[in-house]
Amino acid sequence: MSCAGSEVSRRSYHGRMGTRDRIIDAAEQAIHDFGIAGATTKRIAQRAGCSEALLYKHFAGKEALLLAVLLERLPALAPALTGLRRRTGDLDADLAEFALAALRFYGKAAAIAGGVLGDPPLMAGFREMLAKANSGPHVPIQILGELLRAEQHDGRLDPDIDADAAAALLMGACFHRANLSYFVDLPDEDETWATMIVKTLIRR
Amino acid sequence: MSCAGSEVSRRSYHGRMGTRDRIIDAAEQAIHDFGIAGATTKRIAQRAGCSEALLYKHFAGKEALLLAVLLERLPALAPALTGLRRRTGDLDADLAEFALAALRFYGKAAAIAGGVLGDPPLMAGFREMLAKANSGPHVPIQILGELLRAEQHDGRLDPDIDADAAAALLMGACFHRANLSYFVDLPDEDETWATMIVKTLIRR
Repeated sequence: MSCAGSEVSRRSYHGRMGTRDRIIDAAEQAIHDFGIAGATTKRIAQRAGCSEALLYKHFAGKEALLLAVLLERLPALAPALTGLRRRTGDLDADLAEFALAALRFYGKAAAIAGGVLGDPPLMAGFREMLAKANSGPHVPIQILGELLRAEQHDGRLDPDIDADAAAALLMGACFHRANLSYFVDLPDEDETWATMIVKTLIRR
Repeated sequence: MSCAGSEVSRRSYHGRMGTRDRIIDAAEQAIHDFGIAGATTKRIAQRAGCSEALLYKHFAGKEALLLAVLLERLPALAPALTGLRRRTGDLDADLAEFALAALRFYGKAAAIAGGVLGDPPLMAGFREMLAKANSGPHVPIQILGELLRAEQHDGRLDPDIDADAAAALLMGACFHRANLSYFVDLPDEDETWATMIVKTLIRR
């Protein structure tokens, strides 16, 4: 903020942040209790102790609020990708650890993404918002593909592997498993599974 | 039917089948128009031209009706898996064709599965129904794993590959891509993508 030295401005800045955080917390809780369809902006505003009008001052719509929950409240993918970029250990072990982080993220994100998918008007709004931001759930695959290309460049990964395809396979397997675990009890442990997936994918 | 020779019974049998089919069609249409949450049994019954009581005579609940839509109205995975079992061509090409069939199925199933995921009480009922039937969306991975093991047994696939992990990677990539395509415009063509995925997965 340009006026960060002013005590009044700082308090008003913190005040705004507080409301925004309260709304995101309330949204996360409402989604947990009522599902996406039941988590109306009215319910969320009530739970956050603010008016719907104030909610809309912080978020352009339910789509933007859901995106904030996905990006700011879930165990995020971004730190896991950063960890992979700075990795120093064994490639197999580091990728298996990344797969576990992806499983955790997708496990939490699945209910929100699913709820959006199951609601055609909400889906249309969400798609439009992502297109405007030139972003979307495909970006982590692109980043992982670039990381795998860097490993190939440094001679730590078979250069014959298509890095983007390998990234799509790894992220896809994690996304699918996170979804499956909502529907059925999966027999094998996540750790065992992640190790086998990575071993099969980047075998020498 | 034990009384299939009786004209009266046959007509009543067809009558029942007609109602069941009409209800499934109405459910599919209602899901398309209103999303999972909006596709209430009341709306579905109205559209099928029957009472809710009659709907519940054919389906134990909304969960069973959604499962019928998934299994009986979508471009099914089962024939694609059967095609793979009877395949005679090049393994890479046959798997790429299977991946395209999986993309089509998951593309249609995503909105229904997502809607279930986004609705906690519906999800609980769906999970219980699948557990009782000892079935679920993980079964196609198991079947594909068995098919890949048969290919290994016949010397057409690297025996060092873990067949179950390879199956999870292929199905997962297809499931993920089908979901992603709802959120963003994907740059590459499905055919090109499927070929690269398979080539990367079963490389020699």
